[in-house]
Amino acid sequence: MEVTRKNYKSCLNTVYSAIEEADFLAIDGEFSGISDGPNVSALTNGLDTPEERYTKLKKHSMDFLLFQFGLCTFTYDQTNSKYIIKPFNFYVFPKPFNRTSPDIKFICQSSSIDFLASQGFDFNKVFCHGIPYLNQEEEAHLREQTEERRNQHANGVGTPSYISPSSSKGPAHVPEEHKEFISRVVDRVEALFTKPDKTLDLEPCTGFQRKLIYQTLNWKFPKGLHLETIETEKKERYIQVCRVDEEEKRKMEQHKQEREQEELNDAVGFSRVVHAISKSGKLVVGHNMLLDVMHTIHQFYCPLPDDLQDFKEVTMCVFPRLLDTKLMASTQPFKELITNTSLAELEKQLKETPFKAPQVDTAQGFPSYNTAQEQLHEAGYDAYITGLCFVSMANYLGSFLTPPKSYISPRSKLIEPFFNKLFLMRIIDIPYLNVTGPDLQPKRDHVLHVSFPKEWKTSDLYQLFSAFGSIQVSWIDDTSAFVSLSQTDQVQIAMNTSRYAESYRIQTYADYVQNKQQQEEKKLGQTNKSWGEDGWVKPHFTSSASTFAYSRALRKRSISPVHGEQGSGELVSADGWNQYSYPESTGSKKMKTDDASRRAHLEAVQSKTSEAWLKTTDASHSSGLSPVPDEEGESSPEGSDPADNAEGTVTWQQASASRNRGQKGKKKKSEATESPPSLFEVPEVW
Amino acid sequence: MEVTRKNYKSCLNTVYSAIEEADFLAIDGEFSGISDGPNVSALTNGLDTPEERYTKLKKHSMDFLLFQFGLCTFTYDQTNSKYIIKPFNFYVFPKPFNRTSPDIKFICQSSSIDFLASQGFDFNKVFCHGIPYLNQEEEAHLREQTEERRNQHANGVGTPSYISPSSSKGPAHVPEEHKEFISRVVDRVEALFTKPDKTLDLEPCTGFQRKLIYQTLNWKFPKGLHLETIETEKKERYIQVCRVDEEEKRKMEQHKQEREQEELNDAVGFSRVVHAISKSGKLVVGHNMLLDVMHTIHQFYCPLPDDLQDFKEVTMCVFPRLLDTKLMASTQPFKELITNTSLAELEKQLKETPFKAPQVDTAQGFPSYNTAQEQLHEAGYDAYITGLCFVSMANYLGSFLTPPKSYISPRSKLIEPFFNKLFLMRIIDIPYLNVTGPDLQPKRDHVLHVSFPKEWKTSDLYQLFSAFGSIQVSWIDDTSAFVSLSQTDQVQIAMNTSRYAESYRIQTYADYVQNKQQQEEKKLGQTNKSWGEDGWVKPHFTSSASTFAYSRALRKRSISPVHGEQGSGELVSADGWNQYSYPESTGSKKMKTDDASRRAHLEAVQSKTSEAWLKTTDASHSSGLSPVPDEEGESSPEGSDPADNAEGTVTWQQASASRNRGQKGKKKKSEATESPPSLFEVPEVW
Repeated sequence: MEVTRKNYKSCLNTVYSAIEEADFLAIDGEFSGISDGPNVSALTNGLDTPEERYTKLKKHSMDFLLFQFGLCTFTYDQTNSKYIIKPFNFYVFPKPFNRTSPDIKFICQSSSIDFLASQGFDFNKVFCHGIPYLNQEEEAHLREQTEERRNQHANGVGTPSYISPSSSKGPAHVPEEHKEFISRVVDRVEALFTKPDKTLDLEPCTGFQRKLIYQTLNWKFPKGLHLETIETEKKERYIQVCRVDEEEKRKMEQHKQEREQEELNDAVGFSRVVHAISKSGKLVVGHNMLLDVMHTIHQFYCPLPDDLQDFKEVTMCVFPRLLDTKLMASTQPFKELITNTSLAELEKQLKETPFKAPQVDTAQGFPSYNTAQEQLHEAGYDAYITGLCFVSMANYLGSFLTPPKSYISPRSKLIEPFFNKLFLMRIIDIPYLNVTGPDLQPKRDHVLHVSFPKEWKTSDLYQLFSAFGSIQVSWIDDTSAFVSLSQTDQVQIAMNTSRYAESYRIQTYADYVQNKQQQEEKKLGQTNKSWGEDGWVKPHFTSSASTFAYSRALRKRSISPVHGEQGSGELVSADGWNQYSYPESTGSKKMKTDDASRRAHLEAVQSKTSEAWLKTTDASHSSGLSPVPDEEGESSPEGSDPADNAEGTVTWQQASASRNRGQKGKKKKSEATESPPSLFEVPEVW
Repeated sequence: MEVTRKNYKSCLNTVYSAIEEADFLAIDGEFSGISDGPNVSALTNGLDTPEERYTKLKKHSMDFLLFQFGLCTFTYDQTNSKYIIKPFNFYVFPKPFNRTSPDIKFICQSSSIDFLASQGFDFNKVFCHGIPYLNQEEEAHLREQTEERRNQHANGVGTPSYISPSSSKGPAHVPEEHKEFISRVVDRVEALFTKPDKTLDLEPCTGFQRKLIYQTLNWKFPKGLHLETIETEKKERYIQVCRVDEEEKRKMEQHKQEREQEELNDAVGFSRVVHAISKSGKLVVGHNMLLDVMHTIHQFYCPLPDDLQDFKEVTMCVFPRLLDTKLMASTQPFKELITNTSLAELEKQLKETPFKAPQVDTAQGFPSYNTAQEQLHEAGYDAYITGLCFVSMANYLGSFLTPPKSYISPRSKLIEPFFNKLFLMRIIDIPYLNVTGPDLQPKRDHVLHVSFPKEWKTSDLYQLFSAFGSIQVSWIDDTSAFVSLSQTDQVQIAMNTSRYAESYRIQTYADYVQNKQQQEEKKLGQTNKSWGEDGWVKPHFTSSASTFAYSRALRKRSISPVHGEQGSGELVSADGWNQYSYPESTGSKKMKTDDASRRAHLEAVQSKTSEAWLKTTDASHSSGLSPVPDEEGESSPEGSDPADNAEGTVTWQQASASRNRGQKGKKKKSEATESPPSLFEVPEVW
């Protein structure tokens, strides 16, 4: 169903009830561009840390517009053993609400626009008929404005809550040059009481003059008048004065308020759909969805925080349960069956053995998509096939159960290992962003950072390192790149060889990270100094988003990191992924996680349905697959608000610590409070 | 005529010949937005200097896209005494030419997009079918790239100019890991000579491998082969090897070159139309056209220079003769007859007495516009009615001749006073940007600069200054504004009153300008220091665009300012415009002007058709109008290149000096070289 400004209001209840009844939701967004800075290969460097990737995407992708939002709701019909779907394709555009509302600017990237154009995208639907929206701050501001105006224009005793304190105190102070104008207005209004006419239209005037008129008339005629500002077609504004009795006045006030309220809701527009998705707490499925999630939060909730950790927390508030089908398809047991995880290819492969195309019916009144006749890159269609992919993969997991099950619910324990892990494009050794926990920290001691003249090309790097076996080059910018050697023992030799080089410079990855961190600390130190800060913003934190400073401080105070078990982190993964070290507990970022995601993490370990990097022990692959039966699962935690669940504060170390216990079916939360408190540590990431 | 990527090539000759035969051209652009920073009232502060206005527009308007360009050519048909028009409406979009060409990002402003949407603008035509373009630098870069690739891929002796020196020197250096791959390719190519097949498709490979293949095969088989890179539908690239004799080889090379050349011309795209307008040297008419001119130069020629003076010079190269109908309509003798100079209103008023609607026919094959049925804000239509307005106003000037003339040619001396003066929106006391001379410098000693808390509103300023008569407020930003007092003698009193104020701060306009200049010099000084500059960039220049530094230095060296006549500048204008001081000759920016514009300036003074601010003596208005008869005019200077005319270097002071002599029909150019040279002075603007 296509939804634009034209039919939005009449569709809203349909959307609400579709979300309400759904078992899970699939989403997809189309944007006006991807990167306003580096090209995509530099934006997605193969050796980014999750922090770096987030920072780059925030900096270089958020000024584009999410202008098409696809939502497809999936509701399982037990009787007929099939999903009923309701696909929606929303066109979104930040049409300014009024003269004082924000006039959003957004960037378009020619290549992205050209690509969408080649896919038959209808730009007129976006720009001419897109649904407006406001983020929460803008909405609050607008509501305040409306309230303020209402107070300012308050019309007398009938509506006491709308009289501003100043308006009843006495006559307005009228500057000399406006006295004659105001006195003329008062004369005309006085005359109104002696005439049969009930209304009087004053001439158009400035906002300041209107304010004076409101103040003066409210004081002079506390009863018997209703005032209203009316805008002409030429955008001139004038005040209409109505002679009314108290009952009429009350009704007019009420009517005006209702109208304002409705206009305000219209302005909040598409954000209401996102709020409904968020409130539902339902599983939200997307394909390669990190940018979709970032854009959705950025446009419809709040500007993205500077700090990745803060972003994770906001994300959990907005989308309590996420699943990325690209991550799922890249993970055991799917990884070895699926050769291409692009959405279109994935959808095709998931129709073939050993998978099964899901049985799906489009709900009545919704136009049905035909997967044979691809409509890729229409957000509604992409959301739809993303949902299909999820269902296929979920059901495939059922084949491992004894007895096998052909339908696996989105609430099944089997799915939980994939929750809240968002695919990280093109990072060699960190496959996902872990929204409800610390991120993986691969060893990168086979990696070198190389700086060189901007004329250099990849072939120059190949030549430079030709003596050290095959290499992998990850460009950072014009004059630097990471070079991964195939053998770690070659690193020192390469370093030694380059010692006297003049045109280029090599450093180990560890040194590079350390230097970068020092530079950032230095920069922050300088910033603090030059801003004359009072020390509230700690120089050790790279983020200085003041709105999040308080919550971060709170979080730091409320947690008690676990010490010990250091060095237990070096595990060799079985399938070629690099080694990961675990963050040292004293230095790791702390996480608030809800019980559900904590349990999910434990299950991830137990079920072994996931790949080596979801495992923490060296285990053989799918051969040893023995997922936890669905029946054993605890009651679905759906709908619980993770933000309310503050006690579940754990570190990755804890999760790792409780892992062994978890295997015996026990969870030990108390650990978190047993260790001595250690506030405001600097995270030692590397 | 609508022109998109679809019909662009077939229309190009029609466009060229329309420009060629025209008497004048009218243009108009539609943009994706106006300001990405301050709101429009701050962007167009009433007391901006021309430099400030230019700098703000460059900073805040140039990242928007000019996506619709209207051109209407007007050709006078003597026989029928009417204009024949050819209107074109070009849709423009920077579709990337290939994978290495620039991926332009541009901003959209919601309010502008929403406005165009409400006017029925077709965004799909822009984004799906817009004509691509390249600026001159991009074009040069692309031509170089093509040339380079051609050299790299050169195929043997038949085309000696395309063999790169390195390719014939010896075998390519093939890195170890590619040796086997290359040797296999050589084997297969050798086999080609023993087979009946004439062509061999190699498998897709990397750019580096292709380079190695080209180098190796060119060296091993200097004759008998033609190589070509072909891209598959999946965007994979492979090399096709053809066994050819010398004649075939030559033909294939030639064909390939022609194809490349055509692709390149296609990529230059819409810029070719702008080049044709530019080369024609015809009068280009626009309405409120400063932004149109800036965008046109920025998109189709070169990034805008930092310095206003450099911008003026670039403008004169691109558009040797401009006329702004909004400026014309705001100038005597039109000013008093025209109450509203917005394009739509102007067009209506110019159909009524004392004006006459021009007789116009649309050329055959062009869809005709109907002014009764407005299509405002379609660039082609706006260009058309802009041209109509110009014709009406020009012909009106003929009514003052003895005997009166009903048709005034765009080449008439009567029009010259309006040349190259671009309307400056909302500046209280500087009505235009003088492209071929120094700008007017009004006295602003009745103006105060006020800083205050961001909570202040206009009414607070009214209140603050209520003791000093009526005021005019020009907002700069949230915390500062200019306040113009009605009486200059109140300035000192206001300053004294505010001496001990804590919440706000008042300074005179002169002090404000001085402080600002000092700050900029300080900033530039710091920048120089931190960049370790070698002193080439003088700290006194607010602009540091290195690309223009050399030309500016040249200009500075080539001119010899006139001393003397200082203090002659205080003239009282007759119609309420503020007083202007003339730049002191030692400090003024120097101008290269062509003879034509210099003469135009003289005529401006003599003809008195222009308003007080085009006059330099106190004279009565249109009553004393005695324009120079058209017949007396010298031969049209059309087509002369102002850049070639370096001797015409004059200062405003000179123009003023030569004015009296000019009235006697003499020009004295030599003055400029009589004074002692004085290089690199700091302009003392205030």
